[in-house]
Amino acid sequence: MKKKCSKESRVIRTSRVFPNDVNNHNTLFGGNLMSDVDMAASISAARHARCGCVTASTDSVDFLSPITLSDSVCFESYVSWTGKSSMEVFVKIIAEDLRSGNRRIAATAFLTFVALDDSGRATEVPRVVPETEEEIKLFETGEERARERKKRRLKSKELADYVTTDKPW
Amino acid sequence: MKKKCSKESRVIRTSRVFPNDVNNHNTLFGGNLMSDVDMAASISAARHARCGCVTASTDSVDFLSPITLSDSVCFESYVSWTGKSSMEVFVKIIAEDLRSGNRRIAATAFLTFVALDDSGRATEVPRVVPETEEEIKLFETGEERARERKKRRLKSKELADYVTTDKPW
Amino acid sequence: MKKKCSKESRVIRTSRVFPNDVNNHNTLFGGNLMSDVDMAASISAARHARCGCVTASTDSVDFLSPITLSDSVCFESYVSWTGKSSMEVFVKIIAEDLRSGNRRIAATAFLTFVALDDSGRATEVPRVVPETEEEIKLFETGEERARERKKRRLKSKELADYVTTDKPW
Amino acid sequence: MKKKCSKESRVIRTSRVFPNDVNNHNTLFGGNLMSDVDMAASISAARHARCGCVTASTDSVDFLSPITLSDSVCFESYVSWTGKSSMEVFVKIIAEDLRSGNRRIAATAFLTFVALDDSGRATEVPRVVPETEEEIKLFETGEERARERKKRRLKSKELADYVTTDKPW
Amino acid sequence: MKKKCSKESRVIRTSRVFPNDVNNHNTLFGGNLMSDVDMAASISAARHARCGCVTASTDSVDFLSPITLSDSVCFESYVSWTGKSSMEVFVKIIAEDLRSGNRRIAATAFLTFVALDDSGRATEVPRVVPETEEEIKLFETGEERARERKKRRLKSKELADYVTTDKPW
Amino acid sequence: MKKKCSKESRVIRTSRVFPNDVNNHNTLFGGNLMSDVDMAASISAARHARCGCVTASTDSVDFLSPITLSDSVCFESYVSWTGKSSMEVFVKIIAEDLRSGNRRIAATAFLTFVALDDSGRATEVPRVVPETEEEIKLFETGEERARERKKRRLKSKELADYVTTDKPW
Repeated sequence: MKKKCSKESRVIRTSRVFPNDVNNHNTLFGGNLMSDVDMAASISAARHARCGCVTASTDSVDFLSPITLSDSVCFESYVSWTGKSSMEVFVKIIAEDLRSGNRRIAATAFLTFVALDDSGRATEVPRVVPETEEEIKLFETGEERARERKKRRLKSKELADYVTTDKPW
Repeated sequence: MKKKCSKESRVIRTSRVFPNDVNNHNTLFGGNLMSDVDMAASISAARHARCGCVTASTDSVDFLSPITLSDSVCFESYVSWTGKSSMEVFVKIIAEDLRSGNRRIAATAFLTFVALDDSGRATEVPRVVPETEEEIKLFETGEERARERKKRRLKSKELADYVTTDKPW
Repeated sequence: MKKKCSKESRVIRTSRVFPNDVNNHNTLFGGNLMSDVDMAASISAARHARCGCVTASTDSVDFLSPITLSDSVCFESYVSWTGKSSMEVFVKIIAEDLRSGNRRIAATAFLTFVALDDSGRATEVPRVVPETEEEIKLFETGEERARERKKRRLKSKELADYVTTDKPW
Repeated sequence: MKKKCSKESRVIRTSRVFPNDVNNHNTLFGGNLMSDVDMAASISAARHARCGCVTASTDSVDFLSPITLSDSVCFESYVSWTGKSSMEVFVKIIAEDLRSGNRRIAATAFLTFVALDDSGRATEVPRVVPETEEEIKLFETGEERARERKKRRLKSKELADYVTTDKPW
Repeated sequence: MKKKCSKESRVIRTSRVFPNDVNNHNTLFGGNLMSDVDMAASISAARHARCGCVTASTDSVDFLSPITLSDSVCFESYVSWTGKSSMEVFVKIIAEDLRSGNRRIAATAFLTFVALDDSGRATEVPRVVPETEEEIKLFETGEERARERKKRRLKSKELADYVTTDKPW
Repeated sequence: MKKKCSKESRVIRTSRVFPNDVNNHNTLFGGNLMSDVDMAASISAARHARCGCVTASTDSVDFLSPITLSDSVCFESYVSWTGKSSMEVFVKIIAEDLRSGNRRIAATAFLTFVALDDSGRATEVPRVVPETEEEIKLFETGEERARERKKRRLKSKELADYVTTDKPW
């Protein structure tokens, strides 16, 4: 199977913050951010696998620094770890104060995608090769995150089996 | 401190799926879903705390069943656990096949919010009181999720300190 | 023909109000509201008929109470009356002050939909069965609204025949 | 009080139809149309009153001809009748088949607006003067529509007092 | 080949300005405006050619007067000059102060479109016939703009060949 | 006055193409593209000037290669030339076939911005320093483009004075 560097799947998406994007405290809604996170990450997955990909999971996202109307937001993503047909994509959400140029991590996220062939079946992906210190660190801890994700997914399925889909009336 | 039932913060938001919302495999983009998840959850938080609230974190979301153009999607959320000034909101994403009426869990999510007073400082929230079997189960496991979240948040901060905010050129 | 309770077609769609949604007097644009009204109502029609449905008419909507940025808006709809292949859907637009929790009717609307089979022809729908006092009252007055609608539609057609489609230059 | 011709408040808004705007039967959602109807009508009201205006009501809208992806849609509106501080705006929704150029009335709508001064109180508007045959016909029948609207508004208020704002759980 | 007056392809699209449309200086973003410009112009091209049309180029646009939240914006377009299968569409962007009714040119734009038959090949369009003084002036200077556009397009292609498509990392 | 490299104002914004973004020939609408072009370019201007900036003009844009649903689109912009208080921003629109990874120039654009101080007056900007071959070439030809732009702007103003702002009825 072919190999590919993390760098090759890197995607950058820089956005402005609009009045509709912020809450009463003038900070970005968490959910709006997720739509940009998913867009960047899914293009990273497609750049790595060069075939159709669907989101399998979004790991937890912690909002570390609020984003305001005077910031621009930079979503930077790349494939950080690979399974057989699954890819883990790391997304950095960097807020940049447009006046001072100061850049800070506003949040980080890991998403997983599954590569699909034209008939919609899971298909093998190239192994990712990390190069920078950051990429190597994420790659080395990737297997552990994958294990935790498997456990979590089981819990999610248990929960899904448990909770009611009945309408509450 | 006042108490409030989970039921009182329940929010339902039903949506259609539009062509722009789906990928090449005709299933909903993961990220689009997150924006509706956050909207429902943040109204639940506001209904519980009756003051301004900001998203603190989004726990992992596992996509258990793809959502297609022939489904409607129902986001149902309520406060499932409370800390001193923080609330955990549980969101069920229920896909309903509009032809058959079959309803299935497409994904579940936990988000946390912090209640803020008018000067933007964290402020106390009512304790949540679970009533149904589902609410009780989620409430009883809430403390453990809060602990895991704290650990995870530390890891996130470590990661944020570690990763570079430099532009990659 | 099968029967169905109003309750079975109930749809709830709760939304936040965004800066783009309000006019200079900080109250929601009437037209924005109509798009959510139509979305809720059309899912109610689909839940009742379990087939494709198209909007036939929107009855008059009176805005009884302005909606502001500090409200959430709850659109609640259900099938209130049925003809042979047509359904009348009632929509309540409930504004909730997110601080106080006070809920008030901001507007009400009736829409009619026609059920279509796969070849696009009108097809029979289940008869609706009202249960609550509100549902019964709306059901009992449904026939009269249908009659008025028929008259009105004739007037609309007359008007449509009368008015010019010429460009005004 | 000043007078103003219907022509002076005429607004035209031509739009394309997009994939997101149509339902499974490839015809425009009724509700999407209402948002353009309201935008055109509210500019007509502002052109007539030259002050802030809020939507008071939307009369019934009958969909006479479906609108498809190959049409453009032309919203044409003007003030058709005036009360003391209220204006009735007539909106024609003209679908144009972009291939053949055939234009047809897809729907018509009447909306009413109230003019507000800077402190938010109802303020007097110029009397409208109809000129064309169409404008004159609409003007002459305006008083009757206003009377019907008043009755209807009472009914709406009665209904609003009657229906429950309770959550259905 | 058939002839057609400029007037026959005239399109008018009037819009409100929303909070999301303006920058920190409360004036409309240049780019938002371009999307409306393109929509009006492409309908003009379709009205002239009565077949599918694709944008070939957008000439320079100079922003002559800022547009604010208290303005409505009127996009008015028509075919101003024709080649064999290409059409030049002129777009006036007229800002109208909704309080005073004063109208001013905020920007002007020329776009070119190519008419395509059903197999996607360029196809002949009717010759445009100008009637008003404005239309005649634009028509008479159309050939020169076409020549300049050809030169410019060559330069653009040279530039496109020259610039790198490599990612900057 | 400070100097700044082109590299420092570089902005990358990568997007997916959605069904609503394409015309009947399945290629991206020209106008949609312009909104992303303007967003990337205005962030470049803000990164260079570190103060408020408004769009002064958009040079002609030639669409060299159609963009389809299977492409991602990468908007890459940087300040290419500077006047006293004005900046010229160059934008490359690179389409990437997500299957093959082939990247091609779909269009190029030059925009100019004016830097404003807090009272809204034009303010001086750092001189831009080009480094790469591409940047140097664009910088060296910048003065000529500025001259042409001045001439063009005069023409635009003449045209604006000439054309009518009257409504066509």
